[in-house]
Amino acid sequence: MEQQQIANAIRFLSIDAVQKANSGHPGAPLGMADMAAVLWRDFLKHNPADPQWINRDRFVLSNGHSSMLLYSLLHLTGYDLSLEDLRNFRQLHSKTPGHPEYGYTPGVETTSGPLGQGIANAVGMALAEKALAARFNRDGFPVVDHFTYAFLGDGCLMEGISHEACSLAGTLKLGKLIALWDNNNISIDGHVDGWFTDDTPARFRAYGWHVIDHVDGHNPRQVAAALEQARNERQKPTLICCKTTIGFGSPNKADSHDSHGSALGKEEVALVRETLGWTHAAFDIPPDIYAQWNAREQGAAAQADWQDLFDRYRKNYPAEATELVRRSLKNLPADWHSTSQDYIRRLQDNPANLATRQASQQALNQFIQWMPELLGGSADLSPSNLTRHSQARDITPDDASGNYISYGVREFGMSAIMNGLALHGGFIPYGGTFLMFMEYARNAVRMAALMKIRSIFVYTHDSIGLGEDGPTHQPVEQLAALRLTPNMETWRGCDRVEAAVSWQQAIERENGPSALIFTRQPLEQQPRDARQLADIARGGYVLRDCEGVPELIIISSGSEVELAVYAAIELTERGKRVRVVSMPCVERFEKQDAAWRESVLPIAVRKRLVIEASIEGFWRGYAGLDGKVLGMSSFGESAPAAVLFGHFGFSKDNALAAARALLAD
Amino acid sequence: MEQQQIANAIRFLSIDAVQKANSGHPGAPLGMADMAAVLWRDFLKHNPADPQWINRDRFVLSNGHSSMLLYSLLHLTGYDLSLEDLRNFRQLHSKTPGHPEYGYTPGVETTSGPLGQGIANAVGMALAEKALAARFNRDGFPVVDHFTYAFLGDGCLMEGISHEACSLAGTLKLGKLIALWDNNNISIDGHVDGWFTDDTPARFRAYGWHVIDHVDGHNPRQVAAALEQARNERQKPTLICCKTTIGFGSPNKADSHDSHGSALGKEEVALVRETLGWTHAAFDIPPDIYAQWNAREQGAAAQADWQDLFDRYRKNYPAEATELVRRSLKNLPADWHSTSQDYIRRLQDNPANLATRQASQQALNQFIQWMPELLGGSADLSPSNLTRHSQARDITPDDASGNYISYGVREFGMSAIMNGLALHGGFIPYGGTFLMFMEYARNAVRMAALMKIRSIFVYTHDSIGLGEDGPTHQPVEQLAALRLTPNMETWRGCDRVEAAVSWQQAIERENGPSALIFTRQPLEQQPRDARQLADIARGGYVLRDCEGVPELIIISSGSEVELAVYAAIELTERGKRVRVVSMPCVERFEKQDAAWRESVLPIAVRKRLVIEASIEGFWRGYAGLDGKVLGMSSFGESAPAAVLFGHFGFSKDNALAAARALLAD
Repeated sequence: MEQQQIANAIRFLSIDAVQKANSGHPGAPLGMADMAAVLWRDFLKHNPADPQWINRDRFVLSNGHSSMLLYSLLHLTGYDLSLEDLRNFRQLHSKTPGHPEYGYTPGVETTSGPLGQGIANAVGMALAEKALAARFNRDGFPVVDHFTYAFLGDGCLMEGISHEACSLAGTLKLGKLIALWDNNNISIDGHVDGWFTDDTPARFRAYGWHVIDHVDGHNPRQVAAALEQARNERQKPTLICCKTTIGFGSPNKADSHDSHGSALGKEEVALVRETLGWTHAAFDIPPDIYAQWNAREQGAAAQADWQDLFDRYRKNYPAEATELVRRSLKNLPADWHSTSQDYIRRLQDNPANLATRQASQQALNQFIQWMPELLGGSADLSPSNLTRHSQARDITPDDASGNYISYGVREFGMSAIMNGLALHGGFIPYGGTFLMFMEYARNAVRMAALMKIRSIFVYTHDSIGLGEDGPTHQPVEQLAALRLTPNMETWRGCDRVEAAVSWQQAIERENGPSALIFTRQPLEQQPRDARQLADIARGGYVLRDCEGVPELIIISSGSEVELAVYAAIELTERGKRVRVVSMPCVERFEKQDAAWRESVLPIAVRKRLVIEASIEGFWRGYAGLDGKVLGMSSFGESAPAAVLFGHFGFSKDNALAAARALLAD
Repeated sequence: MEQQQIANAIRFLSIDAVQKANSGHPGAPLGMADMAAVLWRDFLKHNPADPQWINRDRFVLSNGHSSMLLYSLLHLTGYDLSLEDLRNFRQLHSKTPGHPEYGYTPGVETTSGPLGQGIANAVGMALAEKALAARFNRDGFPVVDHFTYAFLGDGCLMEGISHEACSLAGTLKLGKLIALWDNNNISIDGHVDGWFTDDTPARFRAYGWHVIDHVDGHNPRQVAAALEQARNERQKPTLICCKTTIGFGSPNKADSHDSHGSALGKEEVALVRETLGWTHAAFDIPPDIYAQWNAREQGAAAQADWQDLFDRYRKNYPAEATELVRRSLKNLPADWHSTSQDYIRRLQDNPANLATRQASQQALNQFIQWMPELLGGSADLSPSNLTRHSQARDITPDDASGNYISYGVREFGMSAIMNGLALHGGFIPYGGTFLMFMEYARNAVRMAALMKIRSIFVYTHDSIGLGEDGPTHQPVEQLAALRLTPNMETWRGCDRVEAAVSWQQAIERENGPSALIFTRQPLEQQPRDARQLADIARGGYVLRDCEGVPELIIISSGSEVELAVYAAIELTERGKRVRVVSMPCVERFEKQDAAWRESVLPIAVRKRLVIEASIEGFWRGYAGLDGKVLGMSSFGESAPAAVLFGHFGFSKDNALAAARALLAD
């Protein structure tokens, strides 16, 4: 059978599904089908019956709009993805959403679509493979040994994140990362010559990549030869530049953005059939073509071989084998919770005032001992973020056995690489930057939330308390942006105890990322009884209460809790009934049942004061129409932190005055 | 006098000011002083007495943490920036904040500090110069003719935005952009070899830049020769790679990140004085050194020469001269407001239902006729954003006289370039992408708000109404992030009339950016009387009222206003008193006086329903503790838009049910 007919199975499944949905992107699957057929039939090591096999090759479709290419591949090779699933392309709750979504479809390794992030995820996966291999492989036992392949398009290459991630991949010598560029010279605005004239091969060589140029993406032999060559280069990641035609086979829409983002139309689909000599009806794949694609037997054999190897490894290295399995299954060490809780209790019992970024570092110094899968790093702010713990050892190009990554000044790249590390398995990644520069990485943070993966984002210098660097570096609305992100958990502890709990909770969270917010400046430690200590994990709890029904509730988080407590003490002395609610994690609090929420914030109490040095608009829902928010309503300024807190009204006097004003109303 | 002693004036002003503030970044000014001295004394065309001179060279300090370098230069050359100002470095409301801030300090062309954005602003300035020159210069009258210089550091080069902006600068052949790389091999985590190994000259050549490598940044002759060569290359932007030593002159901290981000310490400052042979006290610059620096005479002469040229230009081309001055002063055409208001009235009088992205395009088709300074574009989504109007003509490498820029898939680069265009003057830039991909550009949007400049960000596909592309592309929390940004104005019109008003208001806004939010799907046009039509500009107004005090107020924006109106009509028929408030711009509404806000949303009315297909948490402050938000509480899904609106509860039935439930409470 002709190779192209085999590839055409992808083409027609793709364009017929797009046609049926009357929505989608037919051009890219038509263009990449030949490349994909070579990679998936002759190179990719995978087992459709077990998409979780830990030593499978990873495949990332960075140009995720070509989702039907991937769904076709998964269906044809034998994953649990039926023709019916393909027919339901882009329908509610189908296994075939518009872009590949992690968790929806067996075999989809990451959610892709936001351009450039897929290749950055792939960098993370290749890094995970290298780091895991360095820790677990032994002579003669390469139990971690796979490639990471990515397809990417012109759009990915234009995005800045491709620069950040690929530059670091070159530095770290991720030799088992192989990217195939679908060089079709088209983006949505048309032929790219007017806006994209990079010499991409030269650019990637400048990053230290191995570049294979001038490959005809429609010539299987050329693609195969390039893949062979790429696999033999183990020091450098490889970029294979495949010249393709978008909309290949479409007589009227090939080589045009007209084939990019909408169904070809019934007539054009018929013409593609004619042009490519495909006589089968929509969603009708002949058995002989299925036979050419089916990878179940080959996949089972490959996994069985590996299982043999792993069984022998287990005999020789039982502890390592157990640990590798544990980490791959994303299980925590059995005694993790109790040991971490002991640590937190000791903190509560031995009060100390310090910046929560320091508290974070102290917690890391402890937790790394019990949690070797923590893989840390910072976007070039290690001495400020204090993300380097006492056992930190850098991952270097020639020794990947360390546990710390200097990501460079690459917040977005770091965050998407962290997502790739988390997706790969074997590591719980965390990475730091200033809270302000979360914004550079914002969409990768959102993607972690969407994918429900355990990336831990550490953000220090969390308010005007950053001081003299000024408003470009002082977060105001960033906490709100994080808290309003679905499936995010944002922790802003008020002292070193809550800071340690935030680490604990982030590590234990199985279905999503956490943002850990820390101060630059020292904070007073608050007293708590055992009940309160346990309640921190509920996200919001009564830190200081009064006798009877409160007249006033003060809600606060982080560095402003001290002010709330001060005001409450003063008012209590004056005979007022004032409650202080510490709210280290709004999202977690909102997940508590109604009874808990009512017990902390009784709906009948309408005198409510929120104190937080961040944008007030976020908190008005908690304050209610009768309450008040003492927050920020403008950008910050450049001045020493203490001056700024006074200037913007975050003083003890002002907190007390605001509380008294509410009580007097 | 030795060149180095002249440069040392920068060095000591910088390290002494940092020492006095006990905060700041001494290392970079020590390292770049020699480069800066050559550029500012021998090349930069500027007039300290008139920082607004339209034909001045622009200078951008992309590594903005070296702010004291720039303040020293401005002080020494004769800008209105005194020694006292330098002594107040990093103090509240001083003219010398921690990072350079536009509007605070004469001569500061942009706010920089968030790395990589300065060079992108510089690309925008160079593009503005080229485009303005193409429109206004005439044979023998190069009235727009200046260079744009930028200093940038390793951090800027690591950031993805440097890729986006510099790639486009190469494509567009911005030959009068000259960037000087402070190649000191240090970032905050230490020597960069472990995380930054790009062959940067090769990378920039791949972008089509002219690269001058191996320049000793401490050798004035080499720097001067490179600048000469750069200025002679008019087809390509130039990168001059200057090898420097961070902390130059500091015996114990040079070539180390120890000199980067905190004061050197008194002893080390004394040692630098010894090392560099500087005998003067802190903030004491001898007259002969001032004389070497003073640029007032030379600057006045340069501007006078230009003024002669411009006066002759005005005689020959009076209309062009008037127009250039008008645009440079950022004045709108005299009849702009009345003509745009006439257009809006005609829309109201001739109802039509269409997607607001189409309404936006129609408005542009009109407004471009009266507003030639509109410089449009899109990050590769022109056919979707509908940002191309009927008179759009591309700016190309060889003809910059057009009014439309294909930015490619570069949202962050686009947005920061737009900021550069706005800062330069002569243009009102607008640029489009999907609302979701605002996130890729998020910090540039914030910077526009911080700088109070007129960048207009067009965001289409504003909700789950985007449909099948799924949750990666469906905004949920993005509106909240924009609305909570200080000094932003975010408009989400409910029909083509409000959409047109949003354009009008964005264009008229003199002190900040606007985000214009548009739907993919068609919306019903709402009826309004003349008063209501005028009130749209207040950001929130009563679109449909009842007799007497309302029992229920329904607040809504954009595509959900139809649902609010439907529910109100149904309930009115059942004898209920229901008001509908359309809230196209929350920020604008919040700027209205208390009486207006009370007249629209009386505090006594507690039954409040907010309907908007975006994250509900944002709206709770408006709903109050007794109201309800019909909003999103999760990510979207991939399905046809109509299915999604139903699935997530945005149906007429559900809107009515929610309203009835509140009334029944």
